[in-house]
Order: sequence, then structure tokens, then C-alpha cells
Amino acid sequence: MRLNCLLILVLTVQISLSILSHRIRLGEKIKPPPNYEKNSFTEFLDHFSFGPSHKFNITYLLSTEKWKPGGPILFYTGNEGSIEHFAGNTGFMFELAEKLTGAVIFAEHRYYGTSLPFGNQSFTDRKHFGYLIAEQALADYAKLLTDFKCANRKFANSPVISFGGSYGGMLTAWFRQSFPNVVAGGLAASAPVWLFPGMSDCRGFFQVTTRAYQQGGGLQCTSEIRQIWSLIDEIVKKPNGLSDLSRAFKTCKPFPNGDFVLDFVEDYLVTLAMANYPYSTSFLGELPAWPVKVYLITSHSLEFCKAMVNCPTQGKLSPQVEKFACAFFSLYNYKQEDTCLSFDSGSENLDSRGWELQTCMEMTNPICSDGKIDMFRPRGWDPIEFSNSCQDRFGIRPRMNWAGLQWWAKDITTDTRLIFSNGDLDPWSAFGVLNETSAPGATIIRIGRGAHHLDLRGSHPNDTVEVRTARSLILEKISNWIDEWHRESHPLYCLEF
Amino acid sequence: MRLNCLLILVLTVQISLSILSHRIRLGEKIKPPPNYEKNSFTEFLDHFSFGPSHKFNITYLLSTEKWKPGGPILFYTGNEGSIEHFAGNTGFMFELAEKLTGAVIFAEHRYYGTSLPFGNQSFTDRKHFGYLIAEQALADYAKLLTDFKCANRKFANSPVISFGGSYGGMLTAWFRQSFPNVVAGGLAASAPVWLFPGMSDCRGFFQVTTRAYQQGGGLQCTSEIRQIWSLIDEIVKKPNGLSDLSRAFKTCKPFPNGDFVLDFVEDYLVTLAMANYPYSTSFLGELPAWPVKVYLITSHSLEFCKAMVNCPTQGKLSPQVEKFACAFFSLYNYKQEDTCLSFDSGSENLDSRGWELQTCMEMTNPICSDGKIDMFRPRGWDPIEFSNSCQDRFGIRPRMNWAGLQWWAKDITTDTRLIFSNGDLDPWSAFGVLNETSAPGATIIRIGRGAHHLDLRGSHPNDTVEVRTARSLILEKISNWIDEWHRESHPLYCLEF
Repeated sequence: MRLNCLLILVLTVQISLSILSHRIRLGEKIKPPPNYEKNSFTEFLDHFSFGPSHKFNITYLLSTEKWKPGGPILFYTGNEGSIEHFAGNTGFMFELAEKLTGAVIFAEHRYYGTSLPFGNQSFTDRKHFGYLIAEQALADYAKLLTDFKCANRKFANSPVISFGGSYGGMLTAWFRQSFPNVVAGGLAASAPVWLFPGMSDCRGFFQVTTRAYQQGGGLQCTSEIRQIWSLIDEIVKKPNGLSDLSRAFKTCKPFPNGDFVLDFVEDYLVTLAMANYPYSTSFLGELPAWPVKVYLITSHSLEFCKAMVNCPTQGKLSPQVEKFACAFFSLYNYKQEDTCLSFDSGSENLDSRGWELQTCMEMTNPICSDGKIDMFRPRGWDPIEFSNSCQDRFGIRPRMNWAGLQWWAKDITTDTRLIFSNGDLDPWSAFGVLNETSAPGATIIRIGRGAHHLDLRGSHPNDTVEVRTARSLILEKISNWIDEWHRESHPLYCLEF
Repeated sequence: MRLNCLLILVLTVQISLSILSHRIRLGEKIKPPPNYEKNSFTEFLDHFSFGPSHKFNITYLLSTEKWKPGGPILFYTGNEGSIEHFAGNTGFMFELAEKLTGAVIFAEHRYYGTSLPFGNQSFTDRKHFGYLIAEQALADYAKLLTDFKCANRKFANSPVISFGGSYGGMLTAWFRQSFPNVVAGGLAASAPVWLFPGMSDCRGFFQVTTRAYQQGGGLQCTSEIRQIWSLIDEIVKKPNGLSDLSRAFKTCKPFPNGDFVLDFVEDYLVTLAMANYPYSTSFLGELPAWPVKVYLITSHSLEFCKAMVNCPTQGKLSPQVEKFACAFFSLYNYKQEDTCLSFDSGSENLDSRGWELQTCMEMTNPICSDGKIDMFRPRGWDPIEFSNSCQDRFGIRPRMNWAGLQWWAKDITTDTRLIFSNGDLDPWSAFGVLNETSAPGATIIRIGRGAHHLDLRGSHPNDTVEVRTARSLILEKISNWIDEWHRESHPLYCLEF
């Protein structure tokens, strides 16, 4: 049985995409990361007021086996999920630790994994969940690192290099901006730092997704997918349409309604683009190598767009939908371990709830589509509607302008010792920093044929030239930062009581 | 009758000095600033969580009469007092507005003046006063400026130059660090950014004060003052000692106790050093020009250390104390409007209460003396004792390491477009940024014979060459920043709803 199944959040008014998971449930099939110890650190619920006095524990993972005096601390700014999940999918940091004789710390983001400020009460109301804010998370990390160095003085002379992917990459960029005294430099991998209202074209996300399919299968392929939405819609309206669809997709339980089908399919297509890695992964569900690409291995039912043509039909539905559904299931079941397609989530998913709350507070992320340039259903994005939906669901209204103000929006000319890396075919690159004119003091890396923060993953024999080159450049930059840092003066302040 | 009398906060365990006022009551005799309109702006109580939903109004003053399109917004980051007080004592900004065709905004700091989040309940307990935090104040300012530009689009192309003196200077430095997207550059005048535990020698404050008296009256003068403390102490222990002292100082009411006398005298000596301006001012009480300096006008009783020698004695107390008290009163009464020395505060002083709270939260400021290099009573500073006193008084314990972490402590090599100016004889310069090696990207200005942020005051015929030179350099730097800013791209993000 495959555990990394899909979670669909059917939201009538707006979609809310978890940056990392894109509505995919995470953290169930975790590859154990290299040797580490699991610790925790006590933090204030609120670093920015003396109103609440509550404290809670943040989990972090520590690996010092490769560290030598003066070597860096490679620090992962945890994002929306349990920290083991990121440690298990960020092998590049462990490889760097070896090359740079560094220690590795992965810090869990508050309100995710085991770092819940109020246990299972953490999401009850604004008094509890209202502190799920990136500023507070960054303050957690800054304190953790400082207190770690103060408690382990041998690390006082160790520059901290920060890493993060996706929302974690945003956090790394902001960490370096906000705490240059704590962070010597950072790699913000696939960080959609400009995902906020007014900063980017909201159609970008689905446009880049579409481009990934065009590169894999050509214009003909995306034009076929574009027709799927209305075809499915027509079937749903017919008597028994929904159960016919369920049969075609080989679902374990029937689809509950038509919107569910459409969202489910859309999510999966996006996920394939995000996880379009050159080798099989289980990061965003079990997926084969290059899941989007039309392989030349025509006999193999794993290939996706090609499968739309070759899959045998049953004759009940339109041939296009039958082929699509068949291809869908064959990719979903590429390991041939399942007899049916499951969309039930086995356990309550705190992670996606956390991210939804974040989008309703400061992480509002407009995503829309026009169905012309992109291959998806046309869909607008309206800030008032979104705000109302947040009010209805959680009793809060987002502060949509705040994150841009807090982290400098597109005004990042003062950024230094920061790398923004993006995969060219990663949907989230639509909101990333893609050229040097925006950030002359930063390093911009674009990874051809790259999916969502591929560079953070451990080396693999199938790695492309593009990602190998990117990792070499990253290593070079980080080495330079470490040398620079050691030439500068960086006093550490620890109070003795 | 003179209104700018002294306020003494007798704290048995620790002294807590308001940076600006040094325990002097402010804001009662205010020179009206140039034409401005008084507005208010609604802010969140808490910018960094969605816990509380409370909002309140911040007062700001706006003057646009000199502004021309593209001209800057000169912005004062209000500190611990009513905003009119700062507007009335920061004439330099209005002069710059004329030269640079700029607008002027003075924003009041939350919990001071009329910007009380909960009216007269603002200081009742941590749920109310706990948001009196510099981070929140800076967020207030960032939002105010952005929303001001969004509501008045003609200012979109106006770079913001920030100004502040003392704690306001700290805020300006941090404002530029935290919001380079909002602030094009800043003048942090007499900003003791390193006043936090562990960052500076706690004896510095009284040492620089002593130096100001040595420059004014020579070593002999400071050595005489150094003896005063034990002489007063001896008198207090005698029968009728306290009333004899009260008579010598010509107090309106008797001194309540010996500690009160010592604190009162010490405060006054420090205040003279802080306000040792080349002309008479009423900023920190009514004071003549160069109050610390021993003038050559021997016949005039205003002069201070000289007066200690010349003042006629009554024979009741030791001659030194009698002379000291007489000189004290003659300086206090230099306008010859008073018949007795008043230390009653006419109204409740919210301002000093606010600052005391700040020192018990994140603005902890160790000040000590050894009575050897300095001329004051020897006094240690113990963090645990201080923390306990905060717990006793307000039910909170300071987070002493936090401000250093939040605003980069001595690790400010990434600072750009920031001026740190300090008067050489200003007690607070002990905690300031005094040389370029600490902040190679910033501009360091030291003003010889300069007291507490003299450079921020309006021009005066008595101004020294040193302060004139400083102001020219500041103008030159700011002009350059404005030119640079106009050459760069600085998009403004405004949501339309």
C-alpha cells in the first residue's frame, strides 16, 4: 500500500496552495536522514511583545560528526512540515557538511511537526494560532542559534550558513536580511519571495506548470489537457457520470463530487511538475524519474502524455477522458503496488492546516489562470473574496500588504551573501528572484530542466549537468562567504545568567 | 514660575535612566514647531501576531509647505515623549526641508504623548503595556509611511530620510536596518545603540559625564564634586541634617530623605552635561548656554564650578556643601524667576513610566560607576538584581539579550546609508558607534564640544564650528542618498481595497 496519497482541500471560494506540498500530504514515508540527535529548545510564544508569557518547545536535529573547529554551521530554516521530512530530502546540506567540515542543524517551524505551542489546542482560535507568523519563526531560529553557540562555545567561531527550500527558502532569504549578525550567508532555493498580492502576475504559477508539460510533450499535449476540464464537467452532469469517472480513475471510493475530481486532477498535474526530478523520489508522493516528460520508452505505461494516446479505452466515456484517467492511474501506480487510487488522508493533517492559516494571515498568495496561455481552468483571484473566506473559516482577515513591507518586496538591492536558485520548470519559480538587476548584491542561479529545489537534494547519478553546475557554484560561493566571515569580527553576546 | 522642574525616580535597587530625559520631566514648556498639521493613523496593537485584534491611533505631525515633487520625506522616529516636544527641538529637519524641498513628518512613539493604545489603562499590566516594544514602534512607522504614500501618490517618488536623537536615533538606525525598502537613509544622532548588557563598559556613561566637567572646570573641580556625596551623607545622618540641607538648596519643600538628595543632585549634574549646548535652551529644563563650563564671567552667579568657590556660606554646613548647594540653586534659577527649588512633578509623568517599562522589557541599560575615574558614587550593576526589581515593580522580567540579537549588536558591517553622530562630551556617547571600523558602510561623525544630539537642533548664532561642520556633512550625505535613490528602482506596493 502506498501511503503518500493525495490530500485535497476543496475550497469553494479560493484555493490555498501549500508551497511545499501543493495540497499533498507529507511526512509519512520518510527516509531517515544521516546520523543526528534530536533536541528541543524553549522559545517564547511571542518574541515581539511581553503580552503573553507562554513558552513552548521547538524541535531541532543536530549532526556534528563532520564538524571541525572553525567549520560552519549549516542551518535549515524549517518550513511547513515536520523537520525530519526536510532533513530526509535535503541531502545537499549533508554533502556540504562533509566538504566544509560543518555541523548541520535542522530547526522545525513553530506549529508544525512536534513543535506545537499548545499541543492539540494549537489551532483552536486566534489566541492560539495567531503566533504562526514567519517573523516569530525567524526569531525562534535566531535565538536557537545564539543560545546554541553560547552553550557550546566551541561553535562561537563557526559562521552560520542558512538553507531552505520553497517557503523555507523564503525564510532563509528573510533570515539573512533580518539577522545578518546571526547568518553569514544563505541559499534560498526555489523561494517564491514575491508570491504576495500585487508583486507578481498571479497567472505565472500555472503558466510555468504548463511550460513544463509543453517541454515534456509539446503543444499538442497541453492543448489536450486543456480540454479535459470541460469534458470531465460534462460527464459529471450526466446520470452515473461520477461513478463512471470513479471507475475510469480506478478510485478506491467514489469521487464525492465534480469539483473534487477537477481539483484532484489539477493538484496532481502540478505536483508532477514540482517533483519533475531526474530520478524517482517520494518527496511529494511516490513518483518515477521525470514524471512530466514523455519518455521514449513507449511500451512503459508510466509515461504520462504519451500514455494519453496509448492507453486502451473502455468505451464508456469520451476516449480523451478514458485515456487521461488511465494514464493518471498508471503514473500514480507506477510502482504497481496499488489496486485502486486512494484520496483519503489516513490521519489529520496539521501541516496543511498550518499553511492555510498562514495564507490567511501574512502569506496570502494569489494564484489565477486564464486557460489560454496555461492549460488549466480559468480562475480569477479576488482579494476581498479571499479575505472574506478567511474570516468565514478562521475568524481572521489577512494583512496582505504586510509581508511585502516586512521583507522589502522587490526592493532588495541591499541583499548580500544570498543565493536565489530556481528551477526553470518549477511552478513556484513564477514568484522567484530570477535576475540580478533586482538584487545586484545577491547571486542568481537558474537551473535548466530543474523542478522544485532540486539543488537541495543529495547528489544522484541521474543528476543533470545543470544541477551539478549549480551545486558547484553554490559550494564556491559558500566557501567564499566562510572565508570572508572569518576575516571579519563577529562578537557573540551571551549573558552569563 | 518655572515648569521644567526635575522628576526624581528614586529606585532603591537600580537606577533606570530615560535616555532622553535622564529622569527629567519633559514636554511642558514646548516651543511651537513650524507650521504643521496634526493627524493620526490607525495601527495594530500587535504587528507580529494575529493573537490580539486591538487597534489604536498613533499621532503624527505633517508639514508639506516646503515640499516639491521628488523632494524627500524627512521622517522623525519619535521616542519616549510627546511628539510635539521633539518637533520643537529638532529644527535641523525643518532647515533641511527648506534646502531639500522636503516634507516633514514627526511620528509619535506608541505609549507616549497621545498615542496610548488603551488610554489611561495602557500601563495597568503586561496584557496592556506588553506591546511597548521598539519592533512594534518601527512597524508602526513603516506602515504609516507606506500607507501615507499609497494615500498620497504624489509622494511615491519621495525618498524617506529618517532622523532621530537618543533612543529616537537608535530607532532610526534600526529603521534603516529593518526596512531599507521604506527608508533611503538615516541620521542616528547621539544614538546609544550599544547600551545593552555586555556590549559596553557600564562605567562609560558617568565617565564621559565626568570628562565634560573636567573640560569645563579642570580636575580640581571634579575632585571636589567627588567629595560631595559623602559630605551630604554625613549631614543627612546628623539631627536636622536633612532640613539644613533643604535650606542650603533652597528647596520649596524639605527633601524627603538622603537618597533623594543624592539622586537629585546626580541627575542634575548629568542633565547639565547632556544639555551642555552653546546657547540657552529649555529642552531638558531651563538652562543657560554652556551650563557645565566654568565661564570667565566671574561676576555672574550662573557659572557653575566657579560658583562653588565664590558662593557665600552660611556657616551651618561644611563650606563645600554650602557652596555646592548655592551654586546648584543659582544655576537652577539662572533666569531669576524662582524663590525656591521645586522637585515636585506637577502632573503624572507617563513618559518616564513608559521608559522604565521599556528598560524592564528589551531596553535594559546597565549603568555603573567606580567613583575613581568618574566623580560619582560607586555603584555596581547586577543583571539578576535588575531582573528581580522589574519582576517586583511590573511583574515582568527583561529579555536582556534580545535587543542585541534583533538589531545586530556590534555586528553592523552591513549598515549602509546611515550616519551615527555623537557629541564628544555627551554622556550617552559612551554607548554610541564612534569609529568606522565597526560600521564601514556607515558614516561616523564626532562633534567636538557637542552635547546630546546638538546637531538635530536648529541653527543658532552661537553654534560651534564643530556642529556647523557636522551639519554640512550631513546635508551632503543626505543629498547623495537622495540622488542615489532616484537612480534606483523602488516600487511601491499598495493594495486597492
